[in-house]
Amino acid sequence: MSYVQLPVDAVRRYCTAIFEKHGFTETEAAGITDVVLTADLYGIESHGVQRMIRYHNSIVNGHVDSSAQPVVTWETPISAVIDGNKTMGQVTARRAMEMAIDKAKKTGFASVVVRNCNHYGIAGYYARMAAEEDLLGFSATNTEAIAIPTFGKQPMLGTSPLAVCMPADPYYFWFDCATTVVPRGKIEVYNKRGDALKDGWAADEKGRSCSDAQHVLDNINQKNYGGIFPIGGYSKDTGSHKGYGLGIIAELFTGVFSGGHTSPHVENGGMGDTSYNFTVMDYGMFGDKKELRARMSTLLQELRDSAKADGQERIYTHGEQEMESMAQKKRDGIPVNDKTVDELKMIGAYVGVKYEAYL
Amino acid sequence: MSYVQLPVDAVRRYCTAIFEKHGFTETEAAGITDVVLTADLYGIESHGVQRMIRYHNSIVNGHVDSSAQPVVTWETPISAVIDGNKTMGQVTARRAMEMAIDKAKKTGFASVVVRNCNHYGIAGYYARMAAEEDLLGFSATNTEAIAIPTFGKQPMLGTSPLAVCMPADPYYFWFDCATTVVPRGKIEVYNKRGDALKDGWAADEKGRSCSDAQHVLDNINQKNYGGIFPIGGYSKDTGSHKGYGLGIIAELFTGVFSGGHTSPHVENGGMGDTSYNFTVMDYGMFGDKKELRARMSTLLQELRDSAKADGQERIYTHGEQEMESMAQKKRDGIPVNDKTVDELKMIGAYVGVKYEAYL
Repeated sequence: MSYVQLPVDAVRRYCTAIFEKHGFTETEAAGITDVVLTADLYGIESHGVQRMIRYHNSIVNGHVDSSAQPVVTWETPISAVIDGNKTMGQVTARRAMEMAIDKAKKTGFASVVVRNCNHYGIAGYYARMAAEEDLLGFSATNTEAIAIPTFGKQPMLGTSPLAVCMPADPYYFWFDCATTVVPRGKIEVYNKRGDALKDGWAADEKGRSCSDAQHVLDNINQKNYGGIFPIGGYSKDTGSHKGYGLGIIAELFTGVFSGGHTSPHVENGGMGDTSYNFTVMDYGMFGDKKELRARMSTLLQELRDSAKADGQERIYTHGEQEMESMAQKKRDGIPVNDKTVDELKMIGAYVGVKYEAYL
Repeated sequence: MSYVQLPVDAVRRYCTAIFEKHGFTETEAAGITDVVLTADLYGIESHGVQRMIRYHNSIVNGHVDSSAQPVVTWETPISAVIDGNKTMGQVTARRAMEMAIDKAKKTGFASVVVRNCNHYGIAGYYARMAAEEDLLGFSATNTEAIAIPTFGKQPMLGTSPLAVCMPADPYYFWFDCATTVVPRGKIEVYNKRGDALKDGWAADEKGRSCSDAQHVLDNINQKNYGGIFPIGGYSKDTGSHKGYGLGIIAELFTGVFSGGHTSPHVENGGMGDTSYNFTVMDYGMFGDKKELRARMSTLLQELRDSAKADGQERIYTHGEQEMESMAQKKRDGIPVNDKTVDELKMIGAYVGVKYEAYL
């Protein structure tokens, strides 16, 4: 697979035009595109423009209803529950996070949950929206069940990521991780390369650690037993029960509190029945914000400056690599593989936007 | 080491009498004892009465100031910052969680942080206090730095546990875990048994995984490089960066937000400069509480009922084993080892409470 470097601004305009043709307003289209491109800029290719085809198909197939509107079904000064009505994940998620930010600016804290929606991209995007307003942000989403509980073999929980973003300088603390030991995309990459999965990543249909990526993916696709282990793998010795518990916490804040489908009941790969959480704290509730932000910056700098293990050259804090990646890609363009370029052209032709006019 | 079974109520009266002799009020003494005994009842022997000698010594040596009072240094309707003034951890922690509960009952959410305090026992005790009021509870504490960042070799973060307790039936979801792959106590147990540590548990002074428990403990005690790995071990392949990030989150909510010492600056094993967080959400902010609680109960039951891995007989949810342990120990007594019995007698003799009059 070969890659081309595409200029960020041109890709942005092209994708925005596509989403406008799909019936979204200019603001909505730009918002969806920003979520997608932020993943590419951060170096998270799996969630970037290579997903455009999936979003396009979801809209064409009607899994995403671009004419529907989310409905607030419950609201308090510090919370809201939103029925996503099978709308585009990124559109409703951005609105829900904006709502949480507005509420938290007034009250100091807010938590907004969404049910019945579609994939929303990278969880960390939304947590970062709060940090851009100098607030502490959280987000989580559930997914269809492909993770198995400690001592289990049946997929019961999602890979459900938890994201936290705290303002700090020069880099925000930007934490975004699946509650499984690896995301599904990593199994797919190992499969394409023909590499054996590591011990403790994925289970076969009997719940045993399995190194055969194709076998694991077949089981997932065929809804057999087997799946991905939680953070900590399959043994309590490596903390499996901790990752399993984090998966339950992600589910509590999404599927349970939203009144939506919990992961064991999410179908169609999560199209139309995914739940999210957006929680915002104004950390000024604990004192002078400049001082608290500086305290966090100091902690992170101390971590980066601490002694490296023999053979290691750097210690990172979460969000640092993503900022470096973004600076480089804004300069050099984002790497897009041939297959994705073909898909982008095909989508443009379908909706009536000329690829060559933009890229 | 041999064990005796001691009746819970008698141990409770004995420990309470000891703390009263140490200058605490009857309520305070009963509160400290309840935290200690809850650990034993839950089967967490490391944090139970075997720690009485440590608490006793802290009071005698003046690390704990039983005559001091915590001071609220900052307060809003949804938050407070408390200077613990080197008071007994359990006393100030219980008060801080009570304050968070009172505030959350009025506003729906509250977060209280404490700095400059002592060990507070099991984090989950405080999270559970909120659940007893049908609220969602969180707690965390930092500790002296004995955990090393991903790619590091210098101890920079605490084993800092995160605890979450959500009401559910028949068992609360009760999650309480160190952000390191194993707690320090597990290294100590392996050392006593002469067993090799597992790969990915602890680092030597060069940051390499080390199986020699004595060597690891010596480095920790001598403040050398080396320590315990985060959840996920030392490699990104096993999610080391995830556990490392969770350790930073624990530090953010304790040492950073409280204005106290962050783990790299905690000294004397954390005596007098430990920070805590107590956060409470009234989950009624998301709708009918009975319904939401039932939804969580259903999720947990589905997990317990899901298919077991070959060779496994049960899948647990967090807090289930602790409830079974408590029922059994209330009936049969709590197991206390010879050395701890001797220590309990010695403490009684020191403060003037006759062991034989109680046990």
